[in-house]
Amino acid sequence: MKEMQVSLGDRSYPIFIGEDLLGAKELWARIRRREQVMVVSNKTVAPLYLEQVMTALPGCTVKSVVIEDGEKYKTLDAFNAVITRLLEQGFSRDCLLVALGGGVIGDITGFAAACYQRGVDYIQIPTTLLAQVDSSVGGKTAVNHALGKNMIGAFYQPSAVLADTRTLATLPEREFRAGLAEVIKYGMIRDPAFFAWLEENLDGLLARDQNRLAHAIEQSCRNKAEIVSLDETEQNVRAILNFGHTFGHAIETATGYTRLLHGEAVAIGMLMAADLSRRHGWLMRESTERLERILERAGLPSGVPTGLRAEQLRSIMAIDKKARSARLFLVLLREIGVAFLTEQYEERLLAETLSEFSAAGG
Amino acid sequence: MKEMQVSLGDRSYPIFIGEDLLGAKELWARIRRREQVMVVSNKTVAPLYLEQVMTALPGCTVKSVVIEDGEKYKTLDAFNAVITRLLEQGFSRDCLLVALGGGVIGDITGFAAACYQRGVDYIQIPTTLLAQVDSSVGGKTAVNHALGKNMIGAFYQPSAVLADTRTLATLPEREFRAGLAEVIKYGMIRDPAFFAWLEENLDGLLARDQNRLAHAIEQSCRNKAEIVSLDETEQNVRAILNFGHTFGHAIETATGYTRLLHGEAVAIGMLMAADLSRRHGWLMRESTERLERILERAGLPSGVPTGLRAEQLRSIMAIDKKARSARLFLVLLREIGVAFLTEQYEERLLAETLSEFSAAGG
Repeated sequence: MKEMQVSLGDRSYPIFIGEDLLGAKELWARIRRREQVMVVSNKTVAPLYLEQVMTALPGCTVKSVVIEDGEKYKTLDAFNAVITRLLEQGFSRDCLLVALGGGVIGDITGFAAACYQRGVDYIQIPTTLLAQVDSSVGGKTAVNHALGKNMIGAFYQPSAVLADTRTLATLPEREFRAGLAEVIKYGMIRDPAFFAWLEENLDGLLARDQNRLAHAIEQSCRNKAEIVSLDETEQNVRAILNFGHTFGHAIETATGYTRLLHGEAVAIGMLMAADLSRRHGWLMRESTERLERILERAGLPSGVPTGLRAEQLRSIMAIDKKARSARLFLVLLREIGVAFLTEQYEERLLAETLSEFSAAGG
Repeated sequence: MKEMQVSLGDRSYPIFIGEDLLGAKELWARIRRREQVMVVSNKTVAPLYLEQVMTALPGCTVKSVVIEDGEKYKTLDAFNAVITRLLEQGFSRDCLLVALGGGVIGDITGFAAACYQRGVDYIQIPTTLLAQVDSSVGGKTAVNHALGKNMIGAFYQPSAVLADTRTLATLPEREFRAGLAEVIKYGMIRDPAFFAWLEENLDGLLARDQNRLAHAIEQSCRNKAEIVSLDETEQNVRAILNFGHTFGHAIETATGYTRLLHGEAVAIGMLMAADLSRRHGWLMRESTERLERILERAGLPSGVPTGLRAEQLRSIMAIDKKARSARLFLVLLREIGVAFLTEQYEERLLAETLSEFSAAGG
């Protein structure tokens, strides 16, 4: 078992990475700290792992709430269902919530923990690769609103994260590969040595070798933790984590979040960001080719789905920009491992990138 | 205009106290910091003051949302109505919410500010005495759930508070007097000099003398701010702010929150806590009499409403206790100005206090 610390002052917490952690009684005895425990899971994950977690907590009052699986259930209603269950069971401010599932479960549970009686403890057990390398660090919790994703939420840190690599064995292949896109992102934006390691070890990862998975998760979490420690509430440097995401979100929005998984859209978005960086002369062609090659080996898509036009993507990106200032900021690359946030790009070159990828098809 | 600072590290903020502040353009120019402003108010307060606030912000995009007046509208639905309005208007993370109203508006607005895009700025303009001396300090925000009051919320500090004493001119007499109960509480729990000042100046306060009101609000906020600075998230000393509240909540619950205002229930609860302290020999009879006298002069009730039995109140208090430990903690007094939290009281004496006040009628 690997153990690393996310350093955020008095909100610091450990991440445990390894095999068969979610039912490990000794580990739970060390981290649980509370008597009343509510496990939140979904209908896909609960049949696989809920029993193991609930029986790993002898001497505690352990209850569970199982919600529907899927992003469309990441709502204020699902959040309220968790709160109602806590109240019906008479849970106090000294209780513990456990999120057992992917990013949706983590987001709903974390937000419920942030708000129940103005804040209670929670532990994350992310069961997808994407959640293990992304949602488990950073403390971003939220639910969606009909008018926007993640519009209702809080920055709220868990008291611990258990990334159990064994749960990845049951993850569908396509979801696993989509998670790899975010792993590769960490190499691209700030860790060239990790990127080289991924190039070396990609086949082992695709075979879901437990040790290589643990290493990839650890390096991803370490990179994200270092960024988040510098900027907990996303005022500045944390923005580089959005590498590939502005393009990716535009693709997801244009396709109504139905045709691509998040990681797949991010993979295409990273290629587009790299392409735009190259067109400005900031990134060498050799580097964009390395990115293309590893994403292709990971079985990730390389072009925008057919039927989307460049102008359509550009106008969706323009709406995204409202968040911060008059001009759209983008995360671009100077080399593999060096990302930066900028509004100093040429609109003409952005149009070229959008056209090239729209024409390519996915 | 008086100005004081609530010291909470990088979450510190100023409270401005005085006449005609809510429409003061120079003050707004100094504190607003944002271009998009959403004023949240209710149907009672909006007709009186909304226009003044909205026209005091030239150059800003100012929108408003007006919700129903009353505690029963302090719900997740009202919260969601504020969020929906923000999204419909395309408000970004750089927006400002303004709470214009009493405690309910402050609680809903503060919680919406805590959650909208994971946190935006908000300014409180409390328009009741209770809200000016209580909700404007402490950062407690929340909405109610059908199974419990304030069960969904956050600790989230405003960026400024404007306590405009002129708004108290339109406050109904009974609400004004209920607010005085909380003012008197600060003297009782930690400020004997302020208690003596209140004894001297109560008639002037009842006549709503602007200078005396400003002084009473300032001293109340200063006392609360000092306590909150020591214990932002209510782990320990902050509990003394609940003086009179455990008894008061039991009375409110038993009467279904219909017969007494919160401050009235707290007034009775403070007398009960003082009585129980005296029965243990911790507080002199002379001190309980001073409390009785000032509350009576303030026109506040002194006995539990008729029809409530001592055993009924005791069992409601027992449910309240679930929050923390096996035994019910109470805030009691050693003298005027010295409160302490204890579970070392005698059950027999508590029963005597409950009986005496239940028999007395209200």
